[in-house]
Amino acid sequence: MENIFLKEKIRREALIIDNNIIKVDHFLNHQIDVKVLDQIASIFFDYFKNRNITKIVTIEASGIAIACSLARFLNVPVVFAKKVSNINDNYYACQVFSYTKQTLNNIVIDKRFLNDKDNVLIIDDFLANGQAVLGLLDLVKQAHSQIVGVGIVIEKSFQKGSILLKKQNIDLLSIIQIQEIVNNKIIFKGEI
Amino acid sequence: MENIFLKEKIRREALIIDNNIIKVDHFLNHQIDVKVLDQIASIFFDYFKNRNITKIVTIEASGIAIACSLARFLNVPVVFAKKVSNINDNYYACQVFSYTKQTLNNIVIDKRFLNDKDNVLIIDDFLANGQAVLGLLDLVKQAHSQIVGVGIVIEKSFQKGSILLKKQNIDLLSIIQIQEIVNNKIIFKGEI
Repeated sequence: MENIFLKEKIRREALIIDNNIIKVDHFLNHQIDVKVLDQIASIFFDYFKNRNITKIVTIEASGIAIACSLARFLNVPVVFAKKVSNINDNYYACQVFSYTKQTLNNIVIDKRFLNDKDNVLIIDDFLANGQAVLGLLDLVKQAHSQIVGVGIVIEKSFQKGSILLKKQNIDLLSIIQIQEIVNNKIIFKGEI
Repeated sequence: MENIFLKEKIRREALIIDNNIIKVDHFLNHQIDVKVLDQIASIFFDYFKNRNITKIVTIEASGIAIACSLARFLNVPVVFAKKVSNINDNYYACQVFSYTKQTLNNIVIDKRFLNDKDNVLIIDDFLANGQAVLGLLDLVKQAHSQIVGVGIVIEKSFQKGSILLKKQNIDLLSIIQIQEIVNNKIIFKGEI
C-alpha cells in the first residue's frame, strides 16, 4: 500500500494556515473517514507487522480512531493516554506542553494497562514539535515496556519532533512527511 | 446479535464505586478492545441499519472508537464534537455540564460537517444525566439535520438521561440498561 493517495488527498483538500498549520479536519481530526483510516492503518501494518506488538498506545482524542483501525490488523488492544486535572499513584504520569493550545497537560496511563511484558507501538496523527509523542514514550518507559516504534500519519519535518525521536533511536514511520510550506502550498519531502 | 456477552463482561469485570460509578476502562474508556466494540457496533447496526443514516455524531474522547466501529457497518463518516476553550461563527456550539468532572464545557461541530440534508445517529458510551447527548442533539438541531436516534452502550437507568430523551421522542437504543447498583453489585433492567 502506497502513500500516494494520501499525499494527493492532503494536497487537494488540506487547509493551510500561515505556512504552518495543516488542517485535515474533514477526514482525520473532526470528521472521520474510516476508509481513509483503514488505508493508513494498512501502511502501518505492512511496516510493523512482524514485531510482536502487544499494545498500541496513543493519546486522546485524534489518535484513537487511527489506533483502533490498526488494532484490527494487529489484533491487539489500544491504550489511549488521558489528559487529566489530577494525577495519583494508579497512573504513569507526565506533563506535556501543547504548542497548538499553549497549555501544559498531565497525561496518564493506568498502570493496569501497561507492563514490562508489553511491546508497544505508539501511534499519533501529527508529529510537529514531538511533545505528545515524547510524553507517551515517557509513560511507556515508566511501565518498563519495550518500545517497538512510532507511527505518525503526518510529520511536519520542518519542526523538531522527528529529530528528537531519531536522537532516541526510535524506529519512526511517518506516512506523510512535509518538508515545508511555501505560499500556503505543501512541499512533501523528496519533492523539488 | 445479543447483548448477553456484554452483560456478562460488565458483571464480571466492571469496577463499581459508591453504588454509582461504573468503570469499564479495560475495554471501552481507556484500554479499547476493538473486538468487543465491533460486537457492540453490530447491535447498533441491526437496529438502525435501514434508516438512511448519513452521519454518525459523537463526542470526544470515548465515543470516537465506538462510532468509528459502527461507521464501517453503515459506510458513513463520523463527526465528533470537540471540547474547546473558544467558540466562533464557524461552529455550531453549546455548553455542556459534566457531572463527573463538575466542569462546564463548550462543545462544537464545524458547520462544514453537518447540514439540513443529513440524517444523524448520535452515539455515546454512557447515558447518565444525559447532558452530553442533549448537547449533541442541540448541535444537530442547529444544523437542521434530521435526528434518526441515539445509540448508547451503557445506560444508567436510575439517572435522568433516558427520561429526558424520551420526553423529546428520541428513538433511544441502550444496549445495556442498569436499573440500580446495590452493595456495589449491578442489577440490570428486567432482572429481579
